[in-house]
Amino acid sequence: MTEKFQTLDKALENLEKGRRARKGKFYLKDKTITLSHGSGGTASHNLIGGMIGKIFSNPILDKMDDSAILPINGSDTRLAFTTDSYVVSPIFFPGGNIGEIAVNGTVNDLAVSGADPLWISVGLILEEGFPIAELKKIIESMQAAAEKAGVHIVTGDTKVVHRGSADKIFINTAGIGIFQDQISLSSLNAEPGDKVLLSGPIGDHGIAVMLAREALDIETDIQSDTAPLNGLIHALLDATKAVHCLKDATRGGVATVLNEIALNSNVAIAIEEDSVPIRPEVNGACEILGLDPLTIANEGRFIAIVASEDAETAVRALQNHPQGSEACIIGEVLEEPEGMVFLRTALGGHRVLDMLVGDPLPRIC
Amino acid sequence: MTEKFQTLDKALENLEKGRRARKGKFYLKDKTITLSHGSGGTASHNLIGGMIGKIFSNPILDKMDDSAILPINGSDTRLAFTTDSYVVSPIFFPGGNIGEIAVNGTVNDLAVSGADPLWISVGLILEEGFPIAELKKIIESMQAAAEKAGVHIVTGDTKVVHRGSADKIFINTAGIGIFQDQISLSSLNAEPGDKVLLSGPIGDHGIAVMLAREALDIETDIQSDTAPLNGLIHALLDATKAVHCLKDATRGGVATVLNEIALNSNVAIAIEEDSVPIRPEVNGACEILGLDPLTIANEGRFIAIVASEDAETAVRALQNHPQGSEACIIGEVLEEPEGMVFLRTALGGHRVLDMLVGDPLPRIC
Repeated sequence: MTEKFQTLDKALENLEKGRRARKGKFYLKDKTITLSHGSGGTASHNLIGGMIGKIFSNPILDKMDDSAILPINGSDTRLAFTTDSYVVSPIFFPGGNIGEIAVNGTVNDLAVSGADPLWISVGLILEEGFPIAELKKIIESMQAAAEKAGVHIVTGDTKVVHRGSADKIFINTAGIGIFQDQISLSSLNAEPGDKVLLSGPIGDHGIAVMLAREALDIETDIQSDTAPLNGLIHALLDATKAVHCLKDATRGGVATVLNEIALNSNVAIAIEEDSVPIRPEVNGACEILGLDPLTIANEGRFIAIVASEDAETAVRALQNHPQGSEACIIGEVLEEPEGMVFLRTALGGHRVLDMLVGDPLPRIC
Repeated sequence: MTEKFQTLDKALENLEKGRRARKGKFYLKDKTITLSHGSGGTASHNLIGGMIGKIFSNPILDKMDDSAILPINGSDTRLAFTTDSYVVSPIFFPGGNIGEIAVNGTVNDLAVSGADPLWISVGLILEEGFPIAELKKIIESMQAAAEKAGVHIVTGDTKVVHRGSADKIFINTAGIGIFQDQISLSSLNAEPGDKVLLSGPIGDHGIAVMLAREALDIETDIQSDTAPLNGLIHALLDATKAVHCLKDATRGGVATVLNEIALNSNVAIAIEEDSVPIRPEVNGACEILGLDPLTIANEGRFIAIVASEDAETAVRALQNHPQGSEACIIGEVLEEPEGMVFLRTALGGHRVLDMLVGDPLPRIC
């Protein structure tokens, strides 16, 4: 169940208590790791908030944003530092491959923190027997992605495990960016009245990967949206200083990102369902597969929370950039109910939009 | 074959031509990845030098040292940046676990570059079904290791793959350090006349992991030497400015590290076989297993190349530190034959010591 169909009143009754309890509290009752712990949704949050983040706790980590922000002693310089591992299956899919998303994903985590991405590390875990020609193709894609994003791959590591001990190739990238000014973007910063912007149509990456899996036989030309977002984000931040929060909508999709913002900023978020751009093919595939496009991973889309008075300027700045032509305002930030996200449907109803529960699409990135 | 028993003259005849050809040239003829490509030895060098490093080539990466050195524009600050993935099996072994070496290994790669390690990222790849109690133990070890080394774990990522698509847990760490002064340590810097120092007895980690594998039933109390080396390296660098090169002797062992230095600095290195500290239990296990202790991975030992006149000062500085009591001089740097490493045996003979070929101990770190 990734959605709960209910009226807003009913939803509030059922969920508000749960939300309040969830803020800062995590329930990790599982004895073993399940695929859901890697979904980016509630199980991931419980594993990280309930154990990993608790043990590693320190003021920098505790912010739990896409990048850690590192002040350099004795200077004004602040670094952004982030990491992600990529385990997507299949490793080649329409519109990209595992190497491309490994570079773009880390570039984007740095960019949404407001930093200029500069340097990337690459850790490869290879399965014995993996074809070197495929590895070469992946490495070439990574270099092409790095060049497109204007970053350099500066350090790396290669490990090999026995046949059957890994699935072909896993890639970790970490990245360093530098903040050019004293910008502060954070999921803590959304304010009632702010507008919610989306940089383009959603669901392409998740559906492209899903349809590339052998078991399925649906023909479409959906391509992954994997792309470096630093150029588009630069255009946005140059146009207005009133951006409060940026988040790329990867694992868990737009629904999960909006819930994180609502929870962290103690606000509600209302989304106009009809205003969310979704390609008809993606919508169709979602209907066939029983998936909610709002919970599907993207690799080249972000949510921006922008002060109301600058929202139009912001949308225009995005639309004027080649990567942002379909950017739009999809909703607004409200004072309450705190920590809640809901959809206003075309028929005037309301539907609570929860964080991703379970993992309908494991190994999507 | 990890060793070649032959006289020095014979060896020169056979190898010098090969060495000259190898400098800057790499042979990647394999069609698929083999375990040797992850050994840290010649196959790794061919994969990285012959393909990955060529495609990613840029002036920072091309130095191919343990850490990338990153100048920050408009300031004197230089960063060190490094990454390593850990796939050791078994994940718990005498003296440590996968989490501990993941933190210490990255701390050490930063420390041998001369930087102060500060910040660590953690990327987890978990197999569905992995016990959360074991994960907790590993995470706690990582935090303890970070505290011991004085670093902070500031950002992370968790992915889960299906049962059978990974072996329990793989960990990537990346790390950032800052250089406090204009020090330059590099495998390019060894000079004829320099002394070769070793920080302690070798082979403990590799043999401890090897013996922990189920198939073997040899009883010893050998423990992994995993440890953060930044404190010991600080003591060394405070004592003398004449350290030319530091390298931790992980995958491929001391033999591989010395060969890298000899090749990169265009020098020869002569090691007194009898002066290399090896515990009797490690020597015994190596004899039974047919392994050369000089090619076995360590997780808490480094080689220092130090100007002759400061070598005694350097050894004393190491010995006065609790982690360096068994440090010693094991050999010297010679002018030629360039790129060659040889052992002077107790009987007055010479034996060529080549880089690790093949991988006698896969998944050792």
